[in-house]
Amino acid sequence: MRPIKIYDTTLRDGTQGEGVSFSLQDKLQIAQRLAELGVEYIEGGYPLSNEKDVAFFEQVRKLDLGASKVCAFGMTRRRGIQAADDPGMVALAKAQTPVYTFVGKTSDFHATKVLNVSLEENLEMIGDSAAFLKKCGDVIYDAEHFFDGWKSNPAYAAKTIQAAASAGAGWIILCDTNGGTMPEEIREIVTAAIDAVKQYDVQIGIHCHNDCDLAVANSLVAVDAGANQVQGTINGIGERCGNADLISVMANLQLKRGFEVLGGDQMQHLTELSRFVYETANMQLRNNQPFVGQSAFAHKGGMHVHAIAKATHTYEHIDPESVGNERRILVSELSGRSNIAALTSKHKIEADRELMDKILAEVVRLENLGYQFETADGSFDLLVKRCADQYRAHFQPIKYRCVAGDRDALSHVAFAEAIIKLSVGEDVRFEAAEGHGPINAMDTALRKALQVDYPTLDEMHLVDYKVRVVNCDEGTAAHIRVNIESSDGKNRWGTIGVSENLIEASWLALVDAVEYKLHMADDAAK
Amino acid sequence: MRPIKIYDTTLRDGTQGEGVSFSLQDKLQIAQRLAELGVEYIEGGYPLSNEKDVAFFEQVRKLDLGASKVCAFGMTRRRGIQAADDPGMVALAKAQTPVYTFVGKTSDFHATKVLNVSLEENLEMIGDSAAFLKKCGDVIYDAEHFFDGWKSNPAYAAKTIQAAASAGAGWIILCDTNGGTMPEEIREIVTAAIDAVKQYDVQIGIHCHNDCDLAVANSLVAVDAGANQVQGTINGIGERCGNADLISVMANLQLKRGFEVLGGDQMQHLTELSRFVYETANMQLRNNQPFVGQSAFAHKGGMHVHAIAKATHTYEHIDPESVGNERRILVSELSGRSNIAALTSKHKIEADRELMDKILAEVVRLENLGYQFETADGSFDLLVKRCADQYRAHFQPIKYRCVAGDRDALSHVAFAEAIIKLSVGEDVRFEAAEGHGPINAMDTALRKALQVDYPTLDEMHLVDYKVRVVNCDEGTAAHIRVNIESSDGKNRWGTIGVSENLIEASWLALVDAVEYKLHMADDAAK
Repeated sequence: MRPIKIYDTTLRDGTQGEGVSFSLQDKLQIAQRLAELGVEYIEGGYPLSNEKDVAFFEQVRKLDLGASKVCAFGMTRRRGIQAADDPGMVALAKAQTPVYTFVGKTSDFHATKVLNVSLEENLEMIGDSAAFLKKCGDVIYDAEHFFDGWKSNPAYAAKTIQAAASAGAGWIILCDTNGGTMPEEIREIVTAAIDAVKQYDVQIGIHCHNDCDLAVANSLVAVDAGANQVQGTINGIGERCGNADLISVMANLQLKRGFEVLGGDQMQHLTELSRFVYETANMQLRNNQPFVGQSAFAHKGGMHVHAIAKATHTYEHIDPESVGNERRILVSELSGRSNIAALTSKHKIEADRELMDKILAEVVRLENLGYQFETADGSFDLLVKRCADQYRAHFQPIKYRCVAGDRDALSHVAFAEAIIKLSVGEDVRFEAAEGHGPINAMDTALRKALQVDYPTLDEMHLVDYKVRVVNCDEGTAAHIRVNIESSDGKNRWGTIGVSENLIEASWLALVDAVEYKLHMADDAAK
Repeated sequence: MRPIKIYDTTLRDGTQGEGVSFSLQDKLQIAQRLAELGVEYIEGGYPLSNEKDVAFFEQVRKLDLGASKVCAFGMTRRRGIQAADDPGMVALAKAQTPVYTFVGKTSDFHATKVLNVSLEENLEMIGDSAAFLKKCGDVIYDAEHFFDGWKSNPAYAAKTIQAAASAGAGWIILCDTNGGTMPEEIREIVTAAIDAVKQYDVQIGIHCHNDCDLAVANSLVAVDAGANQVQGTINGIGERCGNADLISVMANLQLKRGFEVLGGDQMQHLTELSRFVYETANMQLRNNQPFVGQSAFAHKGGMHVHAIAKATHTYEHIDPESVGNERRILVSELSGRSNIAALTSKHKIEADRELMDKILAEVVRLENLGYQFETADGSFDLLVKRCADQYRAHFQPIKYRCVAGDRDALSHVAFAEAIIKLSVGEDVRFEAAEGHGPINAMDTALRKALQVDYPTLDEMHLVDYKVRVVNCDEGTAAHIRVNIESSDGKNRWGTIGVSENLIEASWLALVDAVEYKLHMADDAAK
C-alpha cells in the first residue's frame, strides 16, 4: 500500500480551539514529541500573527527533529502588492523552515465578497505567493473552502489549484473549512481535483473539520480517492468542533486499512502522545476517545468481560497494545502490566515480575486517588525507586504552613508567606520565606532550609505549575491535581501531588521535585 | 426522501458507558424528553438484569409518550428450554411494551465458543424467541457482531437473520458490536443482508459503535445502502468509545441529507436535549461536540469573525439555530474590534464606537496581564458592564486571608481556613470558614458573609477549577491564571482571575463568579 504523509497542525490550527493556548515551551515540547513519533510535517505557527510564533521558529531550529519537517503557515500575499513586499510573505521567509504552507481562496464568493478582489487577481495572488515561497523551500497550498467552492463554481475552483500547482506548489491540500461536506461529496470532488491538476508534478492532500462528526471518515474517503497527505491535529483539537483527529486517522489508516503511515512500532506511542498533548494544553482527557481514551478498551458488562476472558477479539476490534492503550475491566479496575513495563524500561530499571506487580499495585492505588504519571516522570521514577528499595529520603518534612491574603485593606496588596520545618539527618531546619504566592513562598523556604546541605539545588527552578480538579462534580471539595515542571538547565522533570487541599498537593509535588533532583545528583556521582 | 426511524438506546446501551448511571426518575424523564422530540423507539432497559428496569416498565406506562414506542430489551432464550420457560423471555413479556427487542448471535465463533451451542441450535434459539415475542407485540431482532460474523461466514450469518425474519421479527438490526467495521464494508454487507431477507416482510436497521471514530459515518452509509432505522444514544454515550451519537445522526440525516427524521421544527430542540442528558447523567459537556457543543459555532480568529460579520455561511455549515445552538464570538489574543462588536450585541448592550474602543482597550490591557476571556464569559460580561457604566457592585471586599498547612506534624493532616471581611451597603460582614483547601474555605466564607443579603447564591456551586502559569519562564514568580466554572443548575458561566499570587487570582475569580450570578438575578428581575 502507498505511504500516506501526516501533516500535524496542532500547534497552529489546534490553537484556534476554544480554551487552547500553548506557551512557547509547550509548543517546542509538542514538536519534539511529534518528531519522535515520526510525523512527516509539523506546522509550527503563523509567524505574522504573533511574537510567540516568531520565537518558536527561531528556537525549533535548535531541536533535533530527525526526518520531520517544520512548516510555517501564512496566507496569500495581499492584493495590489508584490509578494516580496508583503509582510506576511516576508514573515514566512524569515521563519527559515524547510516547508512553507499558505492558504488561499477557492470560492468565488470568498474572493470577491470577503477579500474584495477580482477573480483574476485572486488567481494571481495564489500564483505569486507560491512562486515567491518556492524560492525559499517546499510549498504546500491549502485550498480554503475547496469543497464549497467546487460545488458553487467547479471551473474557478480548478483554476485556483492550477494556479498554485503551476507556480511550484508540491502539494495541494483540499480543505473542508466549514466541516459541512458529506463523505460521498468528498470522494467525488477529490477525484475531480486530482484530474484537474494531473498535468502538474503535484500531490493532493485533505484537511477536514469535524462539524458533522465526519472528519475522520472524510479523511479516509479522500485517501481512498487518491489523496496522499492528511492534515489534522492530535486529539482533534481546533476551532468549533475541531479538526480531523490524527490519532484516529493514523490508527485507521495503518492498523485497519494497511497504509504505511508511521514506521516501526510507533503506533504504540499514540496513547502516550494523546495524553501528553491533553496535559500540556491543560485540557480534560476525553475518556471515550477512540483508540486512546481511558475507556476505549474498558469492559463493563459482565457478559462482555466473560467473553473477553475467552477471546479478546470478541469485544475488541484491535489489540489495545497496538496503540499503547490497555484493556480495563471495570469491576476490578486492574490496569495493564505492559504500561508499567514500558515505563520502567524507559527509566532503565530492570524489573522482574515481582517488582512489576508491586509497581503496578502502587500505580493503581495512586491512580484511584487521581494521580496520573504520564507527565510526571520525576514522581514515577521516585515511585519505582521506592518499590525497588532504592529510594533514599534526603530530608524529612516535619511541618509546613502558608498564609496568603491582602496585607493592605485599601490598596489590596496581596502577600504570601510560608514556614517550613524539616530534618536532614540529625539536624532540624526551620525557615520562613515570603513569596509572590504561596507556592513561591514554600519553594523559597524549602530551598533556604536545604541550602547548606544540598547546594546543588541552586541549579534548579520551577518552569511550570498546573492545577486541575480531578473529579469535577464536587466543586472545590474535589481532589486537586498539581503538576510541577522543574529544570536545572540540563534536564526537565515533572512531579505530581494530589490532595483535597491545593496547598498540600503543591507541597507534595514540590518535595518530589527536590528529591528527584537530589537523586539525579546521587546517580551522577556514582 | 423516505422516512428514517430513530431508535434510542440511551437508557440501555448508554448505561454501559463508564461512569454512566441513571436513577429510575432520570430514566423516566429522559424517556419523556425523547418522546417530546419525536423519537420513534425508546429502549427502556433490560428487565431481566435489574429491578430498576422492571420498575421503569411499570411506571413508563403512566406517561403520555405520544407516538413514541417503548421497547424492552433481552436476549434469545437459553439453550435447551422452551422460550415460554426462559426467565429472560418471561421478563420481557411482563414488561408489556408495544415492542420487544432481543439480541442473538450472528457469528459462528460466538455461538459455538462463547454460548457453547451448535450452529443449528443457535438458529432455533433466534427463531423461537422471535416467535414467542411476536405473540406479545412487535419484534426487533438485534444481530450481534453482524459484520464480523458476515465476514467470517456469510452463509451462516444470512441464516441467523432469516431465522428471525421468518419467525415474525419486523426489523433486523445489523450491529457492528465491536465498532471495528469500515464504511465501505458496512455498505457492502448491508446491501447483501437486505438481499438475504428480501422474501420476508422485514426492514433493516443499523447499530454502530464508535471505536474507530466512524459510528456516525457508518450509520449514514447504512442508510444510503437501504437501512430504514438507526440505533444510537444521545451524545453517543455507551460502552468503550460509545454508540453512534443520535444527535449527529439525526442532524446529518435531516439537515444535510434531506431524509425525514423528526417532524416539524423538532431539530431545534437537539441542543437542549443533549444538555439535558449530560446534566441528568452528571457528565461533563463535550464543548466541541458537533452541532450541539458550546464551541460548535464559536469563532476565535479575527479573520473568521470579520468574514462571519459579512455572511454567516463563510465559516458555518448550517445555521446554529436550526439545532437550537448559538453563535459565539470568542475574545482572545487573535481578536479585534469585530469580535468585540459581535459580543456586545449578544449582551444586548448598544456599543457605539467610543464604548467599543473602551472595551477593546480594556481587553488588550488585561490580556497583557495574562487574562484570557474565551472561557470566562461571566467575567467578560462584567467587564462590558463596567465599561458601559452598568456595573453595580453588590458587595465591597475589605480583606481576606487564607491559612493552609499540616495541622498534625506526625500524621500530616492538611487543613485550610479562610477569613473574609466585606461590606454590603452600610453593613460590614466578617466570616471565617474551614475547607478542604484554601479555595473551598474562601468560597464557603464568602457565601456565609453574603447569605443574608443574597439568598439566591444558595443555587450556585463551583463545577470546575483550573490553574495555569501564564508566563512559564519565571517559575512560581510568574503570573497565575485561575479559571472557575460555576453553575446554578440552569446556567453555567466562567470567570477568571490573574495574579502573581494563586490565592489572589482565585479570590478574583470567585468574586466575579458571585457578582455575575447576582447581576443575572438583577437582569431577570427587571
